[in-house]
Amino acid sequence: MKTGTSNTFIAIMAGGIGSRFWPSSREHRPKQFLDILGVGKSLIRLTFERFNKEYPTENILIVTNEQYRDLVKEHLPELEDWQILGEPSRNNTAPCVAYTAYKIQSINPDATFIIAPSDHIVLKEDIFLNSIAQAVDYANTNDALVTLGIEPSRPDTGYGYINYQKEDTHNIKKVKQFREKPDLETAKKFLASGDYVWNAGIFIWSVKRILEAFEKYAPEIYNIFENGKSNFGTPTEDDFINEKYPTTPKISIDYAVMEKAQNVYTLPVDFGWSDLGTWASLHAEYTKDEASNAVNSSHYLLDNIENCLIKTPNGKLIVAADLSNYIIVDEEDVLLIFPKHKEQLIKKINAQVADKYGNIFK
Amino acid sequence: MKTGTSNTFIAIMAGGIGSRFWPSSREHRPKQFLDILGVGKSLIRLTFERFNKEYPTENILIVTNEQYRDLVKEHLPELEDWQILGEPSRNNTAPCVAYTAYKIQSINPDATFIIAPSDHIVLKEDIFLNSIAQAVDYANTNDALVTLGIEPSRPDTGYGYINYQKEDTHNIKKVKQFREKPDLETAKKFLASGDYVWNAGIFIWSVKRILEAFEKYAPEIYNIFENGKSNFGTPTEDDFINEKYPTTPKISIDYAVMEKAQNVYTLPVDFGWSDLGTWASLHAEYTKDEASNAVNSSHYLLDNIENCLIKTPNGKLIVAADLSNYIIVDEEDVLLIFPKHKEQLIKKINAQVADKYGNIFK
Repeated sequence: MKTGTSNTFIAIMAGGIGSRFWPSSREHRPKQFLDILGVGKSLIRLTFERFNKEYPTENILIVTNEQYRDLVKEHLPELEDWQILGEPSRNNTAPCVAYTAYKIQSINPDATFIIAPSDHIVLKEDIFLNSIAQAVDYANTNDALVTLGIEPSRPDTGYGYINYQKEDTHNIKKVKQFREKPDLETAKKFLASGDYVWNAGIFIWSVKRILEAFEKYAPEIYNIFENGKSNFGTPTEDDFINEKYPTTPKISIDYAVMEKAQNVYTLPVDFGWSDLGTWASLHAEYTKDEASNAVNSSHYLLDNIENCLIKTPNGKLIVAADLSNYIIVDEEDVLLIFPKHKEQLIKKINAQVADKYGNIFK
Repeated sequence: MKTGTSNTFIAIMAGGIGSRFWPSSREHRPKQFLDILGVGKSLIRLTFERFNKEYPTENILIVTNEQYRDLVKEHLPELEDWQILGEPSRNNTAPCVAYTAYKIQSINPDATFIIAPSDHIVLKEDIFLNSIAQAVDYANTNDALVTLGIEPSRPDTGYGYINYQKEDTHNIKKVKQFREKPDLETAKKFLASGDYVWNAGIFIWSVKRILEAFEKYAPEIYNIFENGKSNFGTPTEDDFINEKYPTTPKISIDYAVMEKAQNVYTLPVDFGWSDLGTWASLHAEYTKDEASNAVNSSHYLLDNIENCLIKTPNGKLIVAADLSNYIIVDEEDVLLIFPKHKEQLIKKINAQVADKYGNIFK
């Protein structure tokens, strides 16, 4: 663990619900608080420790929904209260970034910060930290909003893509445009062209540059925070946030700023990244048996089961036969037995469950 | 509830484990103690009440393994201790019948008794009780060991069959022979011939006739009990049973007596019987939805699920898609997802589970 002061801050976003990971992920205990890999640590803990190898604890902030404040404290007991930014409402990532920028500005107006999700995994931490350091250095010395771009390994249609200037000789490339989730044909073209990376939602910028961008491209958000600027770092900060944050437009940072800004750069990287966005992506990360099953169960007897992801409570026995390509998750008060190729429907299932049973299983 | 005395006794056999109903049925709480139909009463309770409509409580005995004595008391609180015959070991049905016969003899040597399983269902109780009355009457007035024979509705290979004399004009037919579980071809022939019924294991005989039969065909059992006859109905009965019962041969009443005796008769009947021997037979008895699913779950969301039997704990949500012909049982510390046509393997699965994990899930 690093200690000491630094101009570089880390903001870990931990306000999401992770509904595609239902029923493991629930509204009261979302994905980032789960030990979803079965390694003994939650994703948010892993994310914190990853940054904390290089950056001091007091420079790490968590931006989360206020309802998860206690969960954050439980998973990251070394944080002080002021390091947890509690959003009073779910307004997507643009207001979240603005809130974070103003908070850090009140601590150190010359700071550069990394803002990153709490629920991704990184297998090659040294490469990751080295990439972050390069990006921080670049953001410190250039008029640049930097994003890490994941070198695509397959024509995935579940991610947004970033198209960069191939001819740029610097490691960090000027971005030509952001592209939303493509269809398969388009994704294949992106992959073939060699100048597209996945948008992993990991951004590096100085407080100064991101606030300039907000002022220019998202004034409706900028004005709300700018008008209340004097509250940050004072006892009235929470009151201000509770009153004004919910009035900000619900809009993503990509859509509000990144797709419009002219000073966006990306560092193409490959550090064993996964957003663990879906059960299938988790299946890909797990150790699998010879029949390609990822079995996260203490007791099991499986016959003719292949390419399944199985997760049952510790101590519970699962006996199953004759299933291919299913997600089987037995988690508290929900049992899910679902074909893997239909997992995009899990979000819809959530809505159907709510229609039928209210919020019991959310 | 009937009260009063009668020469007719009922002995309900409740010592089985019901392992084909695992994981609902466990060694510590076998099938007969489960409310397996979801009607609010266990199978043993339903069986007791069925007989108790016609026969007084004090004439009903339960023969069970000693380990289930407390469970029997819990389900049938109206019984007194002496009405529960506790077997100190599992020695199959012939010793169980002999024990019962000697016990009843000590109460009333002129008695006739019905001995029947505790875990079957009967949908038409009036026809059932009427059949029993006919059989009792016949057994009282003839040299006859009577068994109820279920008119077969399909060429089931899971039951033993009884072949009777078709030309017999009496309702109660002389038995030609007992046939063990047939293969499908043979079962089809049995069904076509019209003189075969299923052996439901429900017997009616006088104490006198069944003991004569034991003496003649199963002297190795007869002698043990006959030599200890004076203990029955006295304070030494339990000691005698605990010492001698485990020394009796482990053999079924069919094999020890019925297949050999010359005075066996059967009453072909149809009273909506099922032995609920397997999950599939339970599936047949349940109310089913339009996709032929029997769903015993309080909360469920099913998509493209057909011909499945689903049983989950009360309050637990099951979300499932794209499954045909599966048994899905979530019961305490076991989750079973098993193709229905392979359910004969469930007994084997039990053994495999024991090999792998010992007795945890038994």
